[in-house]
Amino acid sequence: MEDSVPMEDSVPAEELPPSFPSAAPLALRHPRGTTRLLLGEGALAAAAAPLGEWLAGRRAFLLTTPRVWGLHGGSLGPLLAPATAVHRLEVPEGEAAKSLAETGRLWSAMLAAGGKRDSRLLAFGGGSVGDLGGFVAGAFLRGIACAQLPTTLLAQVDAAIGGKTAIDLPEAKNSVGLFHHPDLVVAEPAWLRTLPPRELRAGLVEAVKVAVALDAALFARIEAALPALLAGEPAALAAVAAAAATLKVGVVEADPEEAGVRAVLNFGHTLGHALETAAGYRGLLHGEAVAWGMRFALRLAVPRGLPAVDAARLERVLSEVVPAPPPDVDPGALAILLGRDK
Amino acid sequence: MEDSVPMEDSVPAEELPPSFPSAAPLALRHPRGTTRLLLGEGALAAAAAPLGEWLAGRRAFLLTTPRVWGLHGGSLGPLLAPATAVHRLEVPEGEAAKSLAETGRLWSAMLAAGGKRDSRLLAFGGGSVGDLGGFVAGAFLRGIACAQLPTTLLAQVDAAIGGKTAIDLPEAKNSVGLFHHPDLVVAEPAWLRTLPPRELRAGLVEAVKVAVALDAALFARIEAALPALLAGEPAALAAVAAAAATLKVGVVEADPEEAGVRAVLNFGHTLGHALETAAGYRGLLHGEAVAWGMRFALRLAVPRGLPAVDAARLERVLSEVVPAPPPDVDPGALAILLGRDK
Repeated sequence: MEDSVPMEDSVPAEELPPSFPSAAPLALRHPRGTTRLLLGEGALAAAAAPLGEWLAGRRAFLLTTPRVWGLHGGSLGPLLAPATAVHRLEVPEGEAAKSLAETGRLWSAMLAAGGKRDSRLLAFGGGSVGDLGGFVAGAFLRGIACAQLPTTLLAQVDAAIGGKTAIDLPEAKNSVGLFHHPDLVVAEPAWLRTLPPRELRAGLVEAVKVAVALDAALFARIEAALPALLAGEPAALAAVAAAAATLKVGVVEADPEEAGVRAVLNFGHTLGHALETAAGYRGLLHGEAVAWGMRFALRLAVPRGLPAVDAARLERVLSEVVPAPPPDVDPGALAILLGRDK
Repeated sequence: MEDSVPMEDSVPAEELPPSFPSAAPLALRHPRGTTRLLLGEGALAAAAAPLGEWLAGRRAFLLTTPRVWGLHGGSLGPLLAPATAVHRLEVPEGEAAKSLAETGRLWSAMLAAGGKRDSRLLAFGGGSVGDLGGFVAGAFLRGIACAQLPTTLLAQVDAAIGGKTAIDLPEAKNSVGLFHHPDLVVAEPAWLRTLPPRELRAGLVEAVKVAVALDAALFARIEAALPALLAGEPAALAAVAAAAATLKVGVVEADPEEAGVRAVLNFGHTLGHALETAAGYRGLLHGEAVAWGMRFALRLAVPRGLPAVDAARLERVLSEVVPAPPPDVDPGALAILLGRDK
């Protein structure tokens, strides 16, 4: 599934548009209903009404990290007022949150707090919070409704969209999980302004992945705007995030449970997951691992027919987004982990 | 949801038919596909072809208990030969198997054994094995296909049918789970012959529940055949199990994820679950707890309009199936647990 990298040769490197249509409302139809997505500038303001309606008269669980809540809780908090009660559940930053022990602790806390089938869960944070929150919601009392409020570029572009949820076991990343689509995705670009540069770069990798797999014109725009994006220029980031997210919505609608075409989004992920597991889910961000996975996949793809010029363009972008050195992991352990991937 | 106990007054107490149509093939259509059910005498023999096709070329995980495997592994084993490999995973008897720790141990073992998305899981045992196995399958790599091979009356009548899966937390029974329908249910009546009398009685409670909720004629037949059923007479048990299971299939098809009418099958379960949790999931069988839950619900139902003669008939049957004394649990703890039910 990783040897196909569609890319055009001759796409003009256009400038990015000054801004993406503000909070363009978007719907993702899936087999169990519809996800409403609010992307782009003003997304949070536009979410006030639908969030309020969704929460009214219900108990809400807000899954977040101390850092995210400290930075952005002030902007989200007032929108949660329609709930009868809001229980904030805090988890560690990053992959450390996605353990079975943490999952059990959250379920117990939700039961103790009076969680019922009509309760709501909001995942407010990066990809790990979203993966964990979706799983916790999907299996609590056989499934309660959730909303994804992604605060990182990686989560806004990729993780929060499409209903894939997961936790990790020591043996393999994302090895336990569900398809549990959120009712609502709110991706506010202002939340990206506090991202550490390394998180920003890791998120750009997923945007590059979506573009290279699905939209050569977007890839060319990312290439052209790379300095602005790496500098965290808000309008450039907001535009790329919304464009990549919109592309992903289309893929998920076409293949909601990854029976076929959606697998294109796993580009770089087989080696990427193995790298993360080999590193003990520490010291290596998901996007960084995927960048190395894509660069590795490129070496396989060129002998199988990928034009060298395409490979070189992607290689150049990835090496700028995630510079050397590659992660230091044991090759023997990596080989075993590669065999465990789904 | 527990105050409605439809029952006719004047159904003649017919004899049970000598045997239910042999291994009547039955299909349960649900939102994600179809479950094939093989019930009644000869079910296992009739399952050889569909099981073989389902397993061919795949890795299989057989979840069972040492006791069930020791008693009935000989009859099932040969049918699993078409799988490329069969990994037997053994768990403790009863509710003790349905813990988060046991669940994590199983997932890790499945990963270490090379489990993939196209692997199969078979749950071979009573209701606890089925609940746990369905959940383990439903969340392993975001869901692998499973088959239910129920060996107790309770599981053949109720637990194995309808895709409800769950594990327990210390705070509440069945508080974590999924709807994950099996591809295949094989309920071989010969497996019931080794049931301990207490398990048999606990299973009869669920048959009584299904009958009282859905089919007054079946209730009357159970009433009439109660001595034969309590004595474990094979033909009587096979007939009641298949009839009750068939009724349940109809309810699940009408309401696959318990949005409405399926809740009728929760009769007696609110107090029943609280009793089990208060007892620490030990010393009290699920069916026994449900019997006490139904008797309690009857006391609520009579003042709300249930004819006293119906209540008396049900009370008489339940008191014969699960005689006194009632479980000894702390009323204060019970009140708290009742508040936690879904």
